[in-house]
Amino acid sequence: MNRNSVIAAALSLTWSALAQGGPTPPAASAAPAPSLGEIVAAAPAGEWRAIPAGDLLVMDLAPDAKGKARRVVIQLIPAPFSQGWVANIRRLAAAHWWDGTSINRVQDNYVVQWGDANGEDKARAKALPPGLATVPQSAYDTRLPADLKNRWENNAMSNLRRAMATDQTSQTAVSAVPRDAYAIWTSLSAGWPVASDLRGAMWPVHCYGMVGVGRNLSPDTGSGAELYTVIGTPPRHLDRNIALVGRVIEGIDLLSSLPRGTGALGFYETTGERVPIVSVRLGNEVTGLPAYQYLSTESETFARYADARANRRDPFFIHPAGGADVCNIPVPVRRVPPAG
Amino acid sequence: MNRNSVIAAALSLTWSALAQGGPTPPAASAAPAPSLGEIVAAAPAGEWRAIPAGDLLVMDLAPDAKGKARRVVIQLIPAPFSQGWVANIRRLAAAHWWDGTSINRVQDNYVVQWGDANGEDKARAKALPPGLATVPQSAYDTRLPADLKNRWENNAMSNLRRAMATDQTSQTAVSAVPRDAYAIWTSLSAGWPVASDLRGAMWPVHCYGMVGVGRNLSPDTGSGAELYTVIGTPPRHLDRNIALVGRVIEGIDLLSSLPRGTGALGFYETTGERVPIVSVRLGNEVTGLPAYQYLSTESETFARYADARANRRDPFFIHPAGGADVCNIPVPVRRVPPAG
Repeated sequence: MNRNSVIAAALSLTWSALAQGGPTPPAASAAPAPSLGEIVAAAPAGEWRAIPAGDLLVMDLAPDAKGKARRVVIQLIPAPFSQGWVANIRRLAAAHWWDGTSINRVQDNYVVQWGDANGEDKARAKALPPGLATVPQSAYDTRLPADLKNRWENNAMSNLRRAMATDQTSQTAVSAVPRDAYAIWTSLSAGWPVASDLRGAMWPVHCYGMVGVGRNLSPDTGSGAELYTVIGTPPRHLDRNIALVGRVIEGIDLLSSLPRGTGALGFYETTGERVPIVSVRLGNEVTGLPAYQYLSTESETFARYADARANRRDPFFIHPAGGADVCNIPVPVRRVPPAG
Repeated sequence: MNRNSVIAAALSLTWSALAQGGPTPPAASAAPAPSLGEIVAAAPAGEWRAIPAGDLLVMDLAPDAKGKARRVVIQLIPAPFSQGWVANIRRLAAAHWWDGTSINRVQDNYVVQWGDANGEDKARAKALPPGLATVPQSAYDTRLPADLKNRWENNAMSNLRRAMATDQTSQTAVSAVPRDAYAIWTSLSAGWPVASDLRGAMWPVHCYGMVGVGRNLSPDTGSGAELYTVIGTPPRHLDRNIALVGRVIEGIDLLSSLPRGTGALGFYETTGERVPIVSVRLGNEVTGLPAYQYLSTESETFARYADARANRRDPFFIHPAGGADVCNIPVPVRRVPPAG
């Protein structure tokens, strides 16, 4: 099954959870509904997908004030997304380029950003390794598989027509279509949150913990040397305006809890506030790194999990929402449990 | 103009920004589009609304490790929302009940929570002041004004029918309706982010910085003594399941940057990790407090600001989104600038 088929297959699974409107009634059984954690914990081993070590970026910060080690693990996004920048990032990591750079910006409810603190000053900027590509703006999105577009159109229009034929209220009609403020279609597909305009383009979206490429004004697209991660409300207005190259799978709390910068845009105003980056390495260069897996977004367990996030039935809830934002269904990631 | 009229009036202003689909094309003018900050800064004084000091809750934490003062300012939500809990909170503040309590929970990408660390232990819990109301679950939402419902139905259905009559693609039809995963209708109305099912209910929503009331399992609704604020992806699944009583208007960064708790649900595991609360007072009991204002959500400037958030035209952007989530249009709040 090629990548496009995987993405298309994902649609039918997430469709029911995300797009079909009203909450699913609680089961008649007397047992309380399982929690999200219980649903994920019950996934059979075969529904977990390995994340290759070579797709990880391991960032070690200087120890904290109490001497505690700080490691952030990032999963690079796979094809078909952003591969020009991802190739640059692999080259920067192989050159150990980030060693000795720093976290320079922490803006509340927005982003943490790292790279060369002097990058904007040509006289003092750290030289980039040779061979980095200049990636065009057209690579902010990718081609939408035609079968996915056709299936969506058929589903959405038949739902909409049926709703309008049987119930003359916008209430029902609106419930019949997926609802996202930024894109006509969103999904968790092949392990990642994605969106589409259904006119031919598909792109990854800015959820909490996603990692993107800082850039200057268009047509600059950034090299990948300057990176940021999201630490607040999903800044979805950045979708298709900046390249997304991965997501933090471990250690996001080490970044999100840093003191906010007091300069414009949350930049630290003094050298002393910056957090030193000791090293950044591709995962296959790091000894003793745990193996990581994500829950297949095409699995039955993921479908149950997405449905439960959209229709919370655990005892705490009294009004299941009947839907969930694509960024409020984080893809479960785990360290591979010890055998036996 | 009564409160319901204010909310109804808000609809026509935010409708165009939030619901009408495709991005507005950039103006033909050569001048760059103003930034969000420039749009808000240009608001005439008459578009700002005073926040009464009696509607503020001022929480002073113990100074940080460097001895720096830490103050968090919360605006309590006005009628018609959550007034049973708000009355309890006023009573708790008047009794100085929170003095000597602490911040006990910091869960990454979710909430910061404070109150009595021993509240769950009947033998050690701090006694609540007399006279607190037990608020029913029915108060999680309020009545939707009928004129608003009618206007929305007419707008949405005529948009939808026109779209389907003129263009037989779901692309256009879906663009014709507002899109939110959790509610049929959302808006910024009378200063607050709200949602409705259009069946008769309207409620405030869980955006970054909103303050809610911790509770035990249903039918408990919480007294207001245990409070939390949102520090990540809007947990909209909590809407109508927990009372929202206000929002942090200053100092959210002091909470969002706290170390994450390592216990279950992000609770701090040791007393030493908790952040002491020195005092919580209503604003009219605090000397020297600045005066605060919010930008009227019914003003022309707010309409321009909401439209600009949905259609970013500043030079950085190449793909305006054509929409914005209700939680990605934070209501501007400021300290009243000095006269002259």
